[in-house]
Amino acid sequence: MSGAEAGVSAQLPSLDAEENERFSSLALFLVLFLLIGSFLTSYYLRVRRITAVHETIVGLFAGMFVGIVLRIGPLRPVREMLGFSNVIMMNVLLPPIILASGYHLRQAKFFRNFGTILSFALAGTFISAVVIGVIVWIGSFLHIERARLSLLDCLIFGSTLSATDPVTILAIFTSYKVDPQLYSIIFGESILNDAVSIVMFETLLHLRNQTITLWSIFYGFGFFALVFSFSVMLGVVFGLACSLTLKHSHLGSYPELESCIVILIAYSSYFFSNAVQMSGIVSLLFCGITLKHYAHGNMSFHTQRTTKAIFQTLASLSENFIFIYLGLSLFTGAKHEYMPMLIIFTLVAVVVSRYCAVFPIAYLLNRFAQFRARRRQRGAGAGVPVAAYELSHEYQLMLFWAGLRGAVGFALSAGIQGENASMLQTTVLVTVVLTVIVFGGTTAQMLDILHIQTGVDDDEDDVSAAGDEEAPDTQPWMYNDVRPPAIFPADDRYRDMSTELSVRQADENEVLPDAAGPVAFDASVELADDDASTESRSVRMLDTANLIFKDGEWFQRIDERYLLPMFSNTVANRKREQRKEARRAVSHEQEPNTPRSSSPKDKAH
Amino acid sequence: MSGAEAGVSAQLPSLDAEENERFSSLALFLVLFLLIGSFLTSYYLRVRRITAVHETIVGLFAGMFVGIVLRIGPLRPVREMLGFSNVIMMNVLLPPIILASGYHLRQAKFFRNFGTILSFALAGTFISAVVIGVIVWIGSFLHIERARLSLLDCLIFGSTLSATDPVTILAIFTSYKVDPQLYSIIFGESILNDAVSIVMFETLLHLRNQTITLWSIFYGFGFFALVFSFSVMLGVVFGLACSLTLKHSHLGSYPELESCIVILIAYSSYFFSNAVQMSGIVSLLFCGITLKHYAHGNMSFHTQRTTKAIFQTLASLSENFIFIYLGLSLFTGAKHEYMPMLIIFTLVAVVVSRYCAVFPIAYLLNRFAQFRARRRQRGAGAGVPVAAYELSHEYQLMLFWAGLRGAVGFALSAGIQGENASMLQTTVLVTVVLTVIVFGGTTAQMLDILHIQTGVDDDEDDVSAAGDEEAPDTQPWMYNDVRPPAIFPADDRYRDMSTELSVRQADENEVLPDAAGPVAFDASVELADDDASTESRSVRMLDTANLIFKDGEWFQRIDERYLLPMFSNTVANRKREQRKEARRAVSHEQEPNTPRSSSPKDKAH
Repeated sequence: MSGAEAGVSAQLPSLDAEENERFSSLALFLVLFLLIGSFLTSYYLRVRRITAVHETIVGLFAGMFVGIVLRIGPLRPVREMLGFSNVIMMNVLLPPIILASGYHLRQAKFFRNFGTILSFALAGTFISAVVIGVIVWIGSFLHIERARLSLLDCLIFGSTLSATDPVTILAIFTSYKVDPQLYSIIFGESILNDAVSIVMFETLLHLRNQTITLWSIFYGFGFFALVFSFSVMLGVVFGLACSLTLKHSHLGSYPELESCIVILIAYSSYFFSNAVQMSGIVSLLFCGITLKHYAHGNMSFHTQRTTKAIFQTLASLSENFIFIYLGLSLFTGAKHEYMPMLIIFTLVAVVVSRYCAVFPIAYLLNRFAQFRARRRQRGAGAGVPVAAYELSHEYQLMLFWAGLRGAVGFALSAGIQGENASMLQTTVLVTVVLTVIVFGGTTAQMLDILHIQTGVDDDEDDVSAAGDEEAPDTQPWMYNDVRPPAIFPADDRYRDMSTELSVRQADENEVLPDAAGPVAFDASVELADDDASTESRSVRMLDTANLIFKDGEWFQRIDERYLLPMFSNTVANRKREQRKEARRAVSHEQEPNTPRSSSPKDKAH
Repeated sequence: MSGAEAGVSAQLPSLDAEENERFSSLALFLVLFLLIGSFLTSYYLRVRRITAVHETIVGLFAGMFVGIVLRIGPLRPVREMLGFSNVIMMNVLLPPIILASGYHLRQAKFFRNFGTILSFALAGTFISAVVIGVIVWIGSFLHIERARLSLLDCLIFGSTLSATDPVTILAIFTSYKVDPQLYSIIFGESILNDAVSIVMFETLLHLRNQTITLWSIFYGFGFFALVFSFSVMLGVVFGLACSLTLKHSHLGSYPELESCIVILIAYSSYFFSNAVQMSGIVSLLFCGITLKHYAHGNMSFHTQRTTKAIFQTLASLSENFIFIYLGLSLFTGAKHEYMPMLIIFTLVAVVVSRYCAVFPIAYLLNRFAQFRARRRQRGAGAGVPVAAYELSHEYQLMLFWAGLRGAVGFALSAGIQGENASMLQTTVLVTVVLTVIVFGGTTAQMLDILHIQTGVDDDEDDVSAAGDEEAPDTQPWMYNDVRPPAIFPADDRYRDMSTELSVRQADENEVLPDAAGPVAFDASVELADDDASTESRSVRMLDTANLIFKDGEWFQRIDERYLLPMFSNTVANRKREQRKEARRAVSHEQEPNTPRSSSPKDKAH
């Protein structure tokens, strides 16, 4: 809304209000026209099954083409209006994408690979920024261009270029149905490292006006940790506030109010976080995750559908627009300063930094996995090949290739200060565009060359989509991939889960220390006593879930026992269903322990 | 999107970029917070069934309260950021409301009352503007305030205040389920007279820089007619382009692309129309109507649902925001000039002008209806009371009461030029707020006092809502209220329609000149020959439809025969279903002419 101010008007003092209005309408029409073109192209590419060219690349080139036309054509005011505005980028275009990412995050896979993702996002981004900063600083020292850059300026520059792009590569990965594990690692990394690089950038900007001492480094790390964790907290608090509002009201009876309130609360977290000088992007991402985990189960069916549709549509409009906008910016900006040597140096630095970030971290992660595997082997005694825990070399190469730089970096670069600002901004823009074209344009080929599994149907996604059409999706099955629609009684669900578990074990060749095999529940005994049985059931269920969820058992335990009951209707629903089931079992005198072979997926259809 | 520029930044040269960013985030958060509050209040009012206070009034007062706090508090930059920007109003807040109005327009009722609506919207708005203009000019002549206003300035002022508000009154009417005929007249009038007053305002502004002659008046009317009709045409062209795109592609297989394209095309019509200096609002309204009439049948089910949800949610966010914004503006604006005498004079002028617009036009319309009724009586010979055709006195009073002024007027007033501009703008704002509080706040009581029928379930709305949940709604049943879901074979539909017709005749006591009674179709004979039969069927169906649709038969005829087949899949679907039905009839040798008593509404459940 009015966040999109501050952008352009100041540049156009010579036009009167009416002219200004007319030209801004023309500029907006042009943008919409380009967007329509981009969507139609994307349709054509999909229908013809053309995979060599991706729609974001098309958008980029279409933007560049129109940018050139505007540059040589007569419509100077329109061109100036279409110049890049980081306010629009940060307040209008980015939030829908981040919110949709958080909201549609496949929580099971994200949290299963959380350790890996966090290592790449935190350490990887830090390494990237430092390596780019140092290389460019060396270049500046060697007089590759006239400008002299301080090390801090170089680090700031490096931090803008350390965020990998979550849009292009994921669009490609989604259309190819790439192996979900790789997908979730790359997705998680790119989404979190946007957040990390933003906070890092702001931390370094803070240091810019101080004299740098050893203390500054500690201060920097402390500041970073504070901003990051406080932003996460803000997002979670807003998400929980929304869950509680929905839980303790009957807003579901007025779905049009309900959907508006959910959307408004999500955006509030963004702007509130920015207003108290935290990172809005981080808050919004975690608000989205919290909303999906706790609030989604409290929403009416209509609102679940509406919010999903709105978040998706807005995100997809923003995504396409961002690339058109980048393409346009190459030619519409008023004060670009192209420095060819600096650009080449930066490109090299970006590639080197990605190398330095991916391979050492992957090596350490693999070492750690081997260490843990050996300890488990000793504990469990089964003979599992160590390689099963490792991030394969192909995956590492793909991670390396997925290091293209995106629009967030360019948006950040608008905040660069000092006399070299416009030179550095131009360099960031060109680097972003070139990495998108080179790495984004060859991702499909790279998947082929590395023989990475594609066309994998993701269970989690499938079931949730089916459930979405047929019944309200009230179960945030975050910790396991089994996601039965909520209509089935609780007993079936647990039994199915254990069936699924044994399948999974066979699939993944994992040795699991705490259990000998799938647990069979004796529901008829347990359900006789009400609350106590639920308790013991949930503990046992947690043990089962432990088998597949390695990183955050402690959180899962707290979540299942305290948080979900407090913030979501989910557990309440579950208990009610269990009681109903128990009553049915007693009255029908049936044997509820009969094993069943059908998977929850079959039932969903 | 970036249309929201040009607004505020120029006022804040003293703040640096970061501060500016922080304050704008705070301002946006405040706005979102108010919106959440307004939605929660609205929820509370509905749950407690409180009808004396309406949510828009609450929003207005909440905005005023926060405005006062900001005025006396320390946050001056935030206050200035929240000052009214007509760019935001016209490019961000209004389009969703207008688009949703056009898209969710009940086409049957709108077109059935088209003559009445157009009379009020065109003649009524013109009378309003002139009466307000003249009264204020007389006031200025009598030195009620220090300022001297020219007649043209007064007319410009009058034209900003001649648009009635489509938001408040309709929100109330919808929640009360007021008699659909009255609803559609007031809705149609308020939505069209926004458009009329905008075009009138711009026409008068054009005249401002010329010397006024008699020729100017002709020029003014010509300019008005040109802008209005060309804008309508633009909207229709964009809508048809969208229909054709959807019809001749398989975009429905990629619903996320499809919904984006539909939304983009709708907004394109708005900005393109503004860019070529036509009226974007008019284009958008007619684009919405065209999209619903032709393109809706070509969309996939997912897109029908998504577009509906998005248009509705955005419109409802905008509606609530507009009133908060108006309330805020009373205190946040930098340069308000309150002139109490002028305000009182204007309020009187507004009431008088509404009186002059409603009652004379209603009188003329009633005379015309009587004249037509008498001619028909002579033709058909049946004895119908003349009163059945008239706009009753209660309806006229309600129309008078519905003349509150809305946010469009205030948005327009931002374009007023000259030395008295800020004085006039403030007057418009105060007038708008006061009419909303007085007339909007008492609408519920007025409905009661006038004994106007409430709690009427609208067939059209009901069936379409049910069809929306259950099956894709591919039939734009524009001309009659019977709207069966598309899944039933064509024969049933026609038979049901004739049944419904006879019911309607009995209900409305209308004498219909061209037909003696309901037409029974001999489907088994007609369906033997394929295309020719469809032709004759459609002609016969048109004759039937004539019975209930009085104003635009010629258009309906062209539409059914040429336009729908060209732009929509509807007729193609219908033909395919007829063929299928014919084949079934032949193979089963069944008698398809058995009369059935069930109405299409029963079947929809």
